[in-house]
Amino acid sequence: MFGFRSFIPWEVSKLVAMFQAAAQTVFVSSAAASVYRSVFLVGCRRYCKKTPTKLRISEALSGAELGADVKVQGWVRSVRPQKNNVFLHVNDGSSLQSLQIVGQAKLNDPLLTFGSAVEVTGILKKSPHQKQPVELEAEQIRVVGECNPVDFPFKIKDRHSLEYTRQLPHLRCRTNAFSSLLRIRSEAAAAIHSYFKNNGFLQIHTPIITSNDCEGAGELFKVEPSGPDFSDDEEFFSVPAFLTVSGQLHLEVMSGAFSRVYTFGPTFRAENSQSRRHLAEFFMVEAEISFTESLDDLTKVMEDMFRSATEHVMARCVEDVDLFHRHVTPGHRDAVEAMLNKSFPVITYTEAIDILNRSSERFTFPTDWGCDLMTEHEKHLVKHCGNLPVFVTDYPYDLKPFYARDNQDHPRHTAAAVDLLVPGVGELCGGSLREERLNLLMARLKQAGLEDTYSWYLDLRRFGSVPHGGFGLGFERYLQCILGVDNIKDVIPFPRFSHSCML
Amino acid sequence: MFGFRSFIPWEVSKLVAMFQAAAQTVFVSSAAASVYRSVFLVGCRRYCKKTPTKLRISEALSGAELGADVKVQGWVRSVRPQKNNVFLHVNDGSSLQSLQIVGQAKLNDPLLTFGSAVEVTGILKKSPHQKQPVELEAEQIRVVGECNPVDFPFKIKDRHSLEYTRQLPHLRCRTNAFSSLLRIRSEAAAAIHSYFKNNGFLQIHTPIITSNDCEGAGELFKVEPSGPDFSDDEEFFSVPAFLTVSGQLHLEVMSGAFSRVYTFGPTFRAENSQSRRHLAEFFMVEAEISFTESLDDLTKVMEDMFRSATEHVMARCVEDVDLFHRHVTPGHRDAVEAMLNKSFPVITYTEAIDILNRSSERFTFPTDWGCDLMTEHEKHLVKHCGNLPVFVTDYPYDLKPFYARDNQDHPRHTAAAVDLLVPGVGELCGGSLREERLNLLMARLKQAGLEDTYSWYLDLRRFGSVPHGGFGLGFERYLQCILGVDNIKDVIPFPRFSHSCML
Repeated sequence: MFGFRSFIPWEVSKLVAMFQAAAQTVFVSSAAASVYRSVFLVGCRRYCKKTPTKLRISEALSGAELGADVKVQGWVRSVRPQKNNVFLHVNDGSSLQSLQIVGQAKLNDPLLTFGSAVEVTGILKKSPHQKQPVELEAEQIRVVGECNPVDFPFKIKDRHSLEYTRQLPHLRCRTNAFSSLLRIRSEAAAAIHSYFKNNGFLQIHTPIITSNDCEGAGELFKVEPSGPDFSDDEEFFSVPAFLTVSGQLHLEVMSGAFSRVYTFGPTFRAENSQSRRHLAEFFMVEAEISFTESLDDLTKVMEDMFRSATEHVMARCVEDVDLFHRHVTPGHRDAVEAMLNKSFPVITYTEAIDILNRSSERFTFPTDWGCDLMTEHEKHLVKHCGNLPVFVTDYPYDLKPFYARDNQDHPRHTAAAVDLLVPGVGELCGGSLREERLNLLMARLKQAGLEDTYSWYLDLRRFGSVPHGGFGLGFERYLQCILGVDNIKDVIPFPRFSHSCML
Repeated sequence: MFGFRSFIPWEVSKLVAMFQAAAQTVFVSSAAASVYRSVFLVGCRRYCKKTPTKLRISEALSGAELGADVKVQGWVRSVRPQKNNVFLHVNDGSSLQSLQIVGQAKLNDPLLTFGSAVEVTGILKKSPHQKQPVELEAEQIRVVGECNPVDFPFKIKDRHSLEYTRQLPHLRCRTNAFSSLLRIRSEAAAAIHSYFKNNGFLQIHTPIITSNDCEGAGELFKVEPSGPDFSDDEEFFSVPAFLTVSGQLHLEVMSGAFSRVYTFGPTFRAENSQSRRHLAEFFMVEAEISFTESLDDLTKVMEDMFRSATEHVMARCVEDVDLFHRHVTPGHRDAVEAMLNKSFPVITYTEAIDILNRSSERFTFPTDWGCDLMTEHEKHLVKHCGNLPVFVTDYPYDLKPFYARDNQDHPRHTAAAVDLLVPGVGELCGGSLREERLNLLMARLKQAGLEDTYSWYLDLRRFGSVPHGGFGLGFERYLQCILGVDNIKDVIPFPRFSHSCML
């Protein structure tokens, strides 16, 4: 009866019915009632147009609101004016896909350009084209924010390289590839939090500023107030303070009261490196587990977390992941699926050295027992193990920091440490059982002259010490690994590295 | 038939049945079969004892495994030796409650002291006492890590003040109050992430190190490499670099491509303050929303998030929250419930000034229109509004930073900014609509001589600018507010403030 009923809210339909009843009671002449009804309906329609349902693009594309009068807001990804119509694609970051807008030619506007921000009201309809399930038949298109296509550094028809977009950190989220990356990154972070929560881990916010300077003092950033309130010879914190290189020692504090803890946040290295695998600021997931029996207690969590997060991302970000697996590293999906379907091999460091020495490959760096594994060695080992992530365990004792647990073996003296090496990236995780035995730890710290510095750490072993261990995973490297992204700078919103701190 | 069957694994029961069948086939004499069966069963029982189910204390307390042969691990919270028995309480951080262990007197060990780490195997039974639903009848108690009660700085019978435990940052997680705090903090963080995820917000990891130095340069920390690789006159990043005071500007970058974004991480102020409300490093939740129409779009999210997170924490951490509401700030539960049950009043700054000027209270600081609201004013306003959180909107234009949106009103010139003041804490959130109009923003930046520094920020308004706004919430202050904790140092694992950076 009323063609527009499908898109007016329930309250208005009810009002119309009430009006009809009332009008027919008051006016004997149904013709007069009909005139009044028309006037009322025009009013209603105007009212309805003022309050269309506000939808995100992903909601509009879901098709749940077909026939509804809606408002969408976003940025123009394409404009195609035709004789009778204008076609737009509008994106608001809620999905990789844009919503197609169809408007009469009169709705076209010279300000409707690539990159401009718009607000569109109209009716959601089933699209006649197979490419998209839904399109929006526009009644009104309003340009909210202009975008001069001459000045805008992204061009509508160009495919911009990752190198080019990296130079524009304030605008690169407006490209398809980087907006997909950010959705994936957000989902992966959520998946990691979920994994830990579901497995009884407590999240600890370990500090960024720390007075510990354990692992290799050369790579630390120092923190000082920049203002005039403090003189140069007075420390703000009374002690020298640095940016954290790892939350491990702080997690170990918590391992004296909680059997499972983790942290997920930024860590820092003042490395003078511009490599495709290093950043000065990067995110790390670190976990610490009490009452461990062997390295298996750690590798199990590492492998489970990798699998759980990756399956979650693959299932929740189908189109976004596909963009990387099709266009950035074609064929990478197969590699990821192999990682998900097979269990990760475990070899000892000693076996790894044997593999390297038996290989016909010529290495630049030595492969004697006791030498550190270099990138070329890691690559070979991953390939040798069928291009799967591979755990390497039980490293030479002398290669590992003071907290690594002594295996007390000989003649090849090892510590209970483990690295996870993955295809394309190399070291993704590093972990160890920690030396929980007070006498052994104290001897090693004394030898290094660190007994006083770490007296609080020794306290952890004095009072209710338990066998424990943990690991760290580089979150950016994880994203590189599952997406096949070569350069670490392309998987973090605002990369910081030597000679670069844009914005 | 077999009394111990209830606690042997399914596989063993099957083996026993298979053995019985096999034995009765092979041995004609059922007596001989019976002897062999007994031998086999003793073997089984021994095997079973070797692999009891490992349970966390919270799992054991749930009562789901009554009758099972289990292993629990944790730290001793109390020891009560009696003539025939020894009673222990063991806690592993999975809940505030400890599990009661009952062992024969022979299982007592001088090393079983307050704070020691133990591993206990035995059978979970219904407790005869009302105090706990479940207890563990111990078969074996092993001290994993000793704890000398003379040296251990926490004493079994003492109630340690928050001030005392604060001096022991490496051990305070072993107290009931601080372990409750950490469970609540973890749950609150998860609740905030959930709120944003469920409402279509994308999580952005905004950077810690930044070259922006916008809000009040006196409070910034400067970042420099500490190693010898860089000379004093060369900057690591080529530009001066600081620790972030807010992720807002970086979120605004993302607001040009995503309609809802948030960040949750550490922020920094080099304030020379030891107040109970300030830290040098604290966690902030920040959100930015595109296509806003008014401040209501922000206050709605702030109020919803507060409510959603608080309800989540109250429901999931019943005992832990109760510890604070009973013992730390008695009666605080009523205050929190009032906040949850009533909607937050909204007043303008101008109304706030009127309220202050009409009050009979004598204030130390002036209350003229144009003056900043001080702690004493905030307190009065919260009280005036029924001890509820209160939004104060539309502050004097000159009080707000360059990015706050000009309301273009007169003679009292205001900006579209909003603060949320809460009982006991004061300012919990601050937010504003952002100046999205290029000409107005450019004029203000020019006036401040910041036009070049923020050319990238102006670009955001040049290319597809949209009305947008956002806010930040101090996470520690939020925890203070819902728990009634007076000192901010008691709601963060490792507090950093002037003259203190322990561990």
